[in-house]
This record gives sequence, structure tokens and C-alpha cells, in this order.
Amino acid sequence: MTTIIDGKQLAKDLNAQTQQRVAKLAERGITPGLAVIIVGDDPASALYVRNKHRKAVKLGIKSVVRELPATVSQADLMGVVTEYNQDPTINGILVQSPLPRGLDEQAVVAAIDPKKDVDGFHPVNVGRLFNNLPGNYPVSCTPRGIMTMLASLHIHLRGKHAVVVGRSRIVGRPMAAMLLNADMTVTTAHVYTKHLSDVTREADVLVVATGVAHLIKANDVKPGAIVIDVGMDRDDQGKLTGDVDFDGVFDRVGAITPVPGGVGPMTIATLMQQTVDICEWSEQRGNQ
Amino acid sequence: MTTIIDGKQLAKDLNAQTQQRVAKLAERGITPGLAVIIVGDDPASALYVRNKHRKAVKLGIKSVVRELPATVSQADLMGVVTEYNQDPTINGILVQSPLPRGLDEQAVVAAIDPKKDVDGFHPVNVGRLFNNLPGNYPVSCTPRGIMTMLASLHIHLRGKHAVVVGRSRIVGRPMAAMLLNADMTVTTAHVYTKHLSDVTREADVLVVATGVAHLIKANDVKPGAIVIDVGMDRDDQGKLTGDVDFDGVFDRVGAITPVPGGVGPMTIATLMQQTVDICEWSEQRGNQ
Repeated sequence: MTTIIDGKQLAKDLNAQTQQRVAKLAERGITPGLAVIIVGDDPASALYVRNKHRKAVKLGIKSVVRELPATVSQADLMGVVTEYNQDPTINGILVQSPLPRGLDEQAVVAAIDPKKDVDGFHPVNVGRLFNNLPGNYPVSCTPRGIMTMLASLHIHLRGKHAVVVGRSRIVGRPMAAMLLNADMTVTTAHVYTKHLSDVTREADVLVVATGVAHLIKANDVKPGAIVIDVGMDRDDQGKLTGDVDFDGVFDRVGAITPVPGGVGPMTIATLMQQTVDICEWSEQRGNQ
Repeated sequence: MTTIIDGKQLAKDLNAQTQQRVAKLAERGITPGLAVIIVGDDPASALYVRNKHRKAVKLGIKSVVRELPATVSQADLMGVVTEYNQDPTINGILVQSPLPRGLDEQAVVAAIDPKKDVDGFHPVNVGRLFNNLPGNYPVSCTPRGIMTMLASLHIHLRGKHAVVVGRSRIVGRPMAAMLLNADMTVTTAHVYTKHLSDVTREADVLVVATGVAHLIKANDVKPGAIVIDVGMDRDDQGKLTGDVDFDGVFDRVGAITPVPGGVGPMTIATLMQQTVDICEWSEQRGNQ
């Protein structure tokens, strides 16, 4: 029996928890605040930002969307970040990627107060995750959401072999760090990996984040493996599909995430969770 | 024919380059400066610090060793770090590990100006390495020295499989990041890894940093593999040896580092190299 990991349902559950935490904070007169900065008019980015805004509002989080023209200067963009860094009503700051050409995204991310870095992209937070430092700090939301999905399966990860295909800063690299921190043996594969199929077939947990539709087929997975598909691709017919040939691998694997309805909903739910985390951490610091 | 990777000779070559760079800086009236802070009287730490000091002096680097009593307070220790952060004659600051119980090593490392973090341990520099960010920043010296050793072999790393055994913050984790950034497929194994031998036998490049004498034997390596032994262990007779059974694997591997005379000398040579790097980067920034 193959388990379909229902990202929609898990996201719903997580959002319900987040909503309860927001309600508890509200009793003390506290409202978590999320500021999303979007530059230019990329339609996909606009859609992502709208979805985040709606979800935040629905959960009781204060949501501020700041739209800046594609012509904004680096200095003005950094100024907006500084403004939110100093705004005590804002707990999380997020700059929607990608930025228009000519703007230095790394410099903008580095300008965010690490305590408000709700995407977990600031180098200091990346370094903490990579070194598995103790304490509270934000981390990248997609892999964190995947860790929540894995936890829902109630299986032991320690000592098992995880293979992450893809090494992006947003998914692959922090995913590998989190799985290593969960005491898994971790292999990172990518576009230069030779004999990819030999590598992926070693995986007890296989996370695929490449953007290549149906890269992973039945012969590329170990029987019984847990397969997490981060892809959001289009097939030949233009239909949304994943990096994994879901139908092809289904009978072979132990558990798998569908696309859509898998990792996607968990990412945004994790963003909301982390906004509230940061608010609570800030309260704890303030009360010490 | 198995190549013995001669860390002593490579370190000598690297030190000669560093000395030349120091001489060039001297022509412009610039002397790179290294400050080493040592707390308490651990004899091994004292020896390491003495070796660093001697090497620095020999290469023409200004070396300051600050000895603090084991009873020093966290605040006073941080104060010394701040002092060197502000001292324009000091380019690199290093706090010898381990610190006596009761002192927060992570807090001390985080207090070092990332621009002067000659050990590459500050989270912001770790995050930069982990995300393979462009630009100049210090990184952990042992794995950087190993990358120099690999470069000396003039082999292509891209697409080949590296296995790192050990996931310490000083060696295993940054080593895995550097090999991934060199476009290798990278597996990190550790104390919880099951079937370690199956994992290590996949390695075209095998880096072992566990502190377990002769953990890796002939059956654990792929024929022709390049084996880097970071261990500094004692065998049953109390003799210095590595994590790899050198004699046992010798005929099977393509290249291997001896212990002693392998990774050890390269680490200190790389520390000197990085002190001068930081000095040059600082000059470049100053001249912009």
C-alpha cells in the first residue's frame, strides 16, 4: 500500500494550529506581522504574493504588501527593508524573488534583520542551520515544510539514506542540511551528477527539486522509498506536474507527495507558522 | 601506482607563496596581522597556538598571542575580541578551541567581525560558503587545505562522487559544501550511518574525519579512489595514525594522504594563506 502524503490536509492542520497560536497571542494584545516586498510586475510573483497575503489575513496575521516599481533603486529598496527592520509591528520580512535585473538580491537579503528573516535566507541563519546550532532562528520554508511532512509519517529517519536531487539555495541545500541534522546519511545530487539513477536508487528518502518534469521514473527509486516531489512543472500538454513520474513510480514506492497538493501548500503554511514563531521568539526575548 | 599526497611539501610550497605575498605587501608598508586568543592552559591547545605563532612570524606575519586565564568571564573574553575587531593592525582573529567549560564558544565566534574571521567559523561566513555565494570571505582552513591538495592532483572533480565521513563544524560540514561547490555529488556519512562500507565504496574522493583510528580498511574503498585522511589518532601502541588503514588500502587506492605529513601541515599553511587573503581583501576594499 502506497501512502499519498496529503500536503493539502497537512497544510490545513498546520494552518489551524497557527490560527490558534495567533488567537492566543491576540488575547495578550499581540498581532504577528508579515511584510512582503514585491518589485516589478512579474505575474507569477504577484500571484504568490497575493496567496501569501490572503493566507496571512485569514489566519489573523497582519499582512503588509509593499509594491515597488521595477525601476526602484537598490538604495531605495534597502531603505524599505530598513524601515520594516525598525517597525515593531512587523515580525517577518520577505522580499519576493526574483528581483528585476540590476538589483542585487543577495545584498537585499543580507540587509534584512536576521531576527525578521522569515524566509530563512540570510547568510547568518543559513550558517546556523548548516552548523546545526541550537536556539531559535528561521530556516527556509519549503524544506522545513517537507520535514513536517516526513514527521507526519512517524518513521525513523536516523541512519537512513536521504538523497536530495537539486542544490538550490531555497530548497536543495537547506533540505540536505535538515536531513543531516535529523541524523540521516545525506547525498546531494545535481545537474553534473553522473549515473543519477544509481544514486537515487540508494534513497530511503528521495527529495527531488530540479524543475525537470518526470526526471525520476520507476527504475530510479528504491522499492518502498519515500518520495518528495518539489517540482512544479508543465508536461507536454501544459498540465501541471512534478519532477517525478507519479503514476510510474506509484506501485514501487512506500509514500509519495502528489503535484499539485503536496509540497506547495506546505510551503505557504510553513511561512505562516514561521511568522508566528518569530513573533513568539521576540516576545520571549522581550520578557526575559 | 599509488600517489602519496605529500602534505608537507604542498604546505612548504603554499608557505613559500604566502611569504612572497607578505613581502609584496611589505613593499607597500603593509603587514598582515593575526591575533590568536587562548583561554586556560590545555597543553594541546598551547602547542597548536605556539606552532601557529612560529609559522606566522617565519612568514613575516605579525602574530599576537593573547593568553587569558581559564577563569576569564564571558564578557571579558568578548571584550578582547572587540578590541581586535577594532585594531586596524589585526586582519585575522582566532579563538583557540576548545574553550574551558562555562564559556559560550558560539557567542565568542559570533562576536568576531566576519571580515576578520580567519577560521571561517562565523555563521555568516558559513552561510556564504554553504550557499556558494560569490565574493571574498574566509572559510574553514582544514577543508580549504584539502581542496588545495585535490587541486594538486590535476584531476576533474565535477560530476564525480565524494563521500565525507564525519559531520563536524570544522571539517565535515564545510568540506561537503566545498566539494558540492566543486560540482561533485556529495554524500555525508557519520556515526549513525548504516552500512558505512557500502557508502564509502561509492567514493571517487573519500574524506575521513572521524577520530576513529583505522576506521576505513581496504574493503571500504573503491579501487583507484582518492583518500584524504583527516584523523590524528593513536594506535594500540600509542603511535600517531589516521582514520584510514594506510598500509591496508595503499595498493587499492589511486592517491592517499599520510598521517602525519598529510592534512595537518596544510591546515596551518592555509591559515597563514587566509590571513594574507584577508589583509589583501581589506586593502582592496580600502582602495575602492
